[in-house]
Amino acid sequence: MKKIAVVFLPVLLLLAFSLLSTAEQKREEEFRDRRLSRNSGGPAGEETDNPYVFGEESFESRVRSEHGRVRVLKKFSSLSPHYLSRIENYRLGLLEADPLTFIMPTHLDADSVFYVIEGEGAISILHEGSRESHSLERGDIIRVWSGSIFYLINKSHDRKLRIVKLLQTGGTNPGDVEAFYSAGGEEADSYYQSFSIELLEAALNTRRDKLQRFFAQHKKEGIIKASEEKIRAIAQQSGKSEGGPWPFTKSKKPFNLLRKRPSHQNNRGHVHEADSNDYEQLKDLNARVAHANISGGSMVAAFFNTRAFRIALVEQGSGYLEIICPHVGRGEEKQRERGQGSRKYTRLSSVLSEGSVYVIPPGHPASIVAGRGKNLQIMCFEMPAENNELVFLAGKNNILREMEDAAKELAFGVAAKAADEVLGGQKGEVFLPGPEEWREEIRGHGDMALEYSVLEVSAGF
Amino acid sequence: MKKIAVVFLPVLLLLAFSLLSTAEQKREEEFRDRRLSRNSGGPAGEETDNPYVFGEESFESRVRSEHGRVRVLKKFSSLSPHYLSRIENYRLGLLEADPLTFIMPTHLDADSVFYVIEGEGAISILHEGSRESHSLERGDIIRVWSGSIFYLINKSHDRKLRIVKLLQTGGTNPGDVEAFYSAGGEEADSYYQSFSIELLEAALNTRRDKLQRFFAQHKKEGIIKASEEKIRAIAQQSGKSEGGPWPFTKSKKPFNLLRKRPSHQNNRGHVHEADSNDYEQLKDLNARVAHANISGGSMVAAFFNTRAFRIALVEQGSGYLEIICPHVGRGEEKQRERGQGSRKYTRLSSVLSEGSVYVIPPGHPASIVAGRGKNLQIMCFEMPAENNELVFLAGKNNILREMEDAAKELAFGVAAKAADEVLGGQKGEVFLPGPEEWREEIRGHGDMALEYSVLEVSAGF
Amino acid sequence: MKKIAVVFLPVLLLLAFSLLSTAEQKREEEFRDRRLSRNSGGPAGEETDNPYVFGEESFESRVRSEHGRVRVLKKFSSLSPHYLSRIENYRLGLLEADPLTFIMPTHLDADSVFYVIEGEGAISILHEGSRESHSLERGDIIRVWSGSIFYLINKSHDRKLRIVKLLQTGGTNPGDVEAFYSAGGEEADSYYQSFSIELLEAALNTRRDKLQRFFAQHKKEGIIKASEEKIRAIAQQSGKSEGGPWPFTKSKKPFNLLRKRPSHQNNRGHVHEADSNDYEQLKDLNARVAHANISGGSMVAAFFNTRAFRIALVEQGSGYLEIICPHVGRGEEKQRERGQGSRKYTRLSSVLSEGSVYVIPPGHPASIVAGRGKNLQIMCFEMPAENNELVFLAGKNNILREMEDAAKELAFGVAAKAADEVLGGQKGEVFLPGPEEWREEIRGHGDMALEYSVLEVSAGF
Repeated sequence: MKKIAVVFLPVLLLLAFSLLSTAEQKREEEFRDRRLSRNSGGPAGEETDNPYVFGEESFESRVRSEHGRVRVLKKFSSLSPHYLSRIENYRLGLLEADPLTFIMPTHLDADSVFYVIEGEGAISILHEGSRESHSLERGDIIRVWSGSIFYLINKSHDRKLRIVKLLQTGGTNPGDVEAFYSAGGEEADSYYQSFSIELLEAALNTRRDKLQRFFAQHKKEGIIKASEEKIRAIAQQSGKSEGGPWPFTKSKKPFNLLRKRPSHQNNRGHVHEADSNDYEQLKDLNARVAHANISGGSMVAAFFNTRAFRIALVEQGSGYLEIICPHVGRGEEKQRERGQGSRKYTRLSSVLSEGSVYVIPPGHPASIVAGRGKNLQIMCFEMPAENNELVFLAGKNNILREMEDAAKELAFGVAAKAADEVLGGQKGEVFLPGPEEWREEIRGHGDMALEYSVLEVSAGF
Repeated sequence: MKKIAVVFLPVLLLLAFSLLSTAEQKREEEFRDRRLSRNSGGPAGEETDNPYVFGEESFESRVRSEHGRVRVLKKFSSLSPHYLSRIENYRLGLLEADPLTFIMPTHLDADSVFYVIEGEGAISILHEGSRESHSLERGDIIRVWSGSIFYLINKSHDRKLRIVKLLQTGGTNPGDVEAFYSAGGEEADSYYQSFSIELLEAALNTRRDKLQRFFAQHKKEGIIKASEEKIRAIAQQSGKSEGGPWPFTKSKKPFNLLRKRPSHQNNRGHVHEADSNDYEQLKDLNARVAHANISGGSMVAAFFNTRAFRIALVEQGSGYLEIICPHVGRGEEKQRERGQGSRKYTRLSSVLSEGSVYVIPPGHPASIVAGRGKNLQIMCFEMPAENNELVFLAGKNNILREMEDAAKELAFGVAAKAADEVLGGQKGEVFLPGPEEWREEIRGHGDMALEYSVLEVSAGF
Repeated sequence: MKKIAVVFLPVLLLLAFSLLSTAEQKREEEFRDRRLSRNSGGPAGEETDNPYVFGEESFESRVRSEHGRVRVLKKFSSLSPHYLSRIENYRLGLLEADPLTFIMPTHLDADSVFYVIEGEGAISILHEGSRESHSLERGDIIRVWSGSIFYLINKSHDRKLRIVKLLQTGGTNPGDVEAFYSAGGEEADSYYQSFSIELLEAALNTRRDKLQRFFAQHKKEGIIKASEEKIRAIAQQSGKSEGGPWPFTKSKKPFNLLRKRPSHQNNRGHVHEADSNDYEQLKDLNARVAHANISGGSMVAAFFNTRAFRIALVEQGSGYLEIICPHVGRGEEKQRERGQGSRKYTRLSSVLSEGSVYVIPPGHPASIVAGRGKNLQIMCFEMPAENNELVFLAGKNNILREMEDAAKELAFGVAAKAADEVLGGQKGEVFLPGPEEWREEIRGHGDMALEYSVLEVSAGF
């Protein structure tokens, strides 16, 4: 799928340009060549050279059941040892459960933040000696603490429950995360059964024959079908805990990201963002959660994060991503031997489709373009969140417009006015028309404009 | 010793069961087989496959003197590279000094927490330009800051001074810790003597001949005998500093763990716990210190820590430990290649005796059984302490009892009532009768009960 | 240069001693032999065995321009894998720019603290959506946040601008730091040009022909000459931001270290120190900045840091450094196998000259001697700064003088009075006469003193 799309993309673009004057077309091709040569060399190259984009094959299966599955993205330090070892302590998880199912009770040796992509569910968490239950819907963020036993239900009769998790590992080695099943699960007995029978008898004050029969009953699946009555019985408990001693205990209620006012919004897209100011339980993880909805054919203005790694998952739609990277292509050897002496930037462009995961490291300029037609919906985690700043390199809020005129002239080697024309040429902000739509708008201005530009060019050289 | 006991244990148990009906005995054996096969396969296996328990051979000697010794547990990252690299920055140290001895002044490039296992001593710490002296007794916790020069005395005429240290290393590589002797010590000159003589002359404003004679005097031992007068002279200083500007400076006075009210106590055992709320100087180390006293023949209800690694040392007595582990047995290769796909739990059981050290990683269910006769006394350090929670899987406070009935039925595949009988069968809490004593109590209820159970069983299959 | 000096040093000293009685001279030689044998064995040895001192060859070039250069010290984990991996996340950078130059706008994926060694410049930082400009002079400390775009000018007509940077890396792998050029720089296009042209057109709302011409103008240098008018225009902006909403936003104004009152001062030298109490922006880096000025022929009393690594750069002058190290010479193998069983300290002595960089790990005793004639000026960064304490092992504030008499007698094996004579023989503090000047002063007391000392000695053996 990925490869096909990569091949397919230039074709699309080619079509888009089919109406251009041959003069322009020639330059256009020169450009693409320059690009490709500067890029890591097409699809094949992509595979080896884009260490920031991950597909289906980069996940490992944790639960594979008739009624759903749990997958975890492989360790970043094994997926991209030379580029992402900084975040090796984090993992990304995905849960999918069929309608009317029960996800078996378990605890992890990792802290996690759940984000509900889709569905209607409920989660019960056994924490600090008591149970709290919360119903879950699209956009909900909930923190599950390391070692808290939790289980979920999908309440819906017809829709899947889909949840993405950011895991911050705390056990054994960085990046390792283990699930401990209280009542058994995927291919697993309950951890109870691993204790010696004589110890278990005494601990539970129950004879071995009884224990045998008890544990003989459990299903060997991580996700099981559940009757409507049981689902209803569990669902009824949801939210009960909220009546509790709150605000004396910090509320563990989920926070709904999508009901918060967007931090940016226009007719090209909008983004919702939540950090520890919205949901106090994100504080010790120093993480931020965001959801972007980019209208079909639109794009996100070129940007970078000053401090945070952004780990993103494509929820819906398709499009492509460009990340500008100073590391890749320099080669591991050079990396080590020569230090980072030379300064060649490589564009890593990848097609995005539902389920694609990508990481944008701090400081790396990037941009995202939504395919025409369907909206491109992306959810992401960012950490460290504290003191992180999102900086735009295009649009009304292009940070470079803040430079003094003299500095612009020295840096760009042209008159400040000419620099402003380019750096400030874009009046839009954050969400902009994508390349194809922009070109169509421009062409709207008629051939005169085109002719002009051609003359301009010939004059230019 | 360890191996023998491991072999010896089943025999013991076998004896305990000698009175059971053959029917039960057969099942009993089946169980043991299942167990052993699931376990890492007996003593030999134990050696290689229990990465969490360490004996004498796992220590390296730092000071070996006629009058005492200092040993440090090897780096966790070298003892258990695949399981304990997370805590590679910590080390465990043990100090033993004969009666009426002086431990030479030294400073470490690590922060440490001392816990006095036994004896009557005193410590002097040179910190922030002045000296503070504190007398030490069993149960005392005292923080020694990285780089603070300290020395100790054993005041007792007849008893050893035994201290265990948690070291958080801060120098060179994680896990490395170095001792710098001011006046020389084990096989070592004073660090003064390593300076060039001309530099030293000028620094101390003392001629080389005088310096020579001065340093020629020092003993080449880390722990030396001391006259009663000198011991008394130093002991008299202890506690002097307490009169000082406190509370304006944070008190560096030791905190006595054993004089604090136990956090759990019954006729089967009790445990004392201290964290930064009790002793403010534990705060930046984010560590907790605990001491458990388990009556002979009793056990600790199955439990896990949600977040903390527990590093424990057996002070007195013997018994055995069971840790349930999802990593071990999966094999390193599988670990890496296949990810943590499968969920087989391995029971790691080890005999504990005086001096045994074990680590329980977060999330891992475990239980400890005291041998009959003598009490089993264990001291432990836990970190990170913040937000760590101790969760019990058996007894009145079994966390799983908090599940909704419907959830219990789905998870365990039996009626809620049946689940409660097992999960709540144990009325005791934290400290319980151990396997052997439990069985005797049960048998106390007479043959009727046994027959019943047998019928029950035959019915059960 | 280094090697020569190392060989040269003993000769110097030999000369200094040429007037001594043969008796003393003999002992003196014995001493030197002992020293050398204990030391890692002369120049050749030095190279391999002093993992804490770095010269020109340890830097990698980042910008090499006709008008200046930027160099970064190689990763500590590659320079000294066995000794400095703890600080692998830090890098040291050096910027040198000719008079009337402009340093191209860039952002780093690292936090940095700049310290101005020399010159008159100005820095503009694009942060939180706006620009702030500050003029810079010798002694100024300024924090530049990860991802903030910054550029500088050298305002001076005749003097270089020299800046040293401490970098705390936050991207990709620990220790990696990348520069992202907005308008291009050393061997580099602007990162803008790495985006696909069709994306760039839409993002900047500017036609490709215009973009081509725009980017065709930029210089391919990181540091360029600038006209006086442009320099003046930019310089005029400096400090403007100070009028801003401060104190509502934390001031980003530079802090001048050298204008702060010295923390120690006498006729032999003085030192200035600044931490987060002086400049709040050092807080999250947990770093301290210091500048020492040691008069020619003077020395710093033997000392160690309790917790901090000290990374130092020699600004001016020359001299030598002695670090006492328990690791080196033990050999990597021993390091691993035998653990740190033995306690042999090795003196690592190195000649210091302008541009030398050295690191003193926590706990390691060290001393620095200024060559006669010129003052030795050193700037250094220390981290972690919190709870770090500077401990002196010689002089009026020699920490060991705080020991109880009885403890002194036990530790040093001599009468307390004799110990005090040595430990307290030096009445000076922090900055003292160096070895040569001390010897001359002593000799000033006449031959009688010398004869006396000789008798004393013969008696002594």
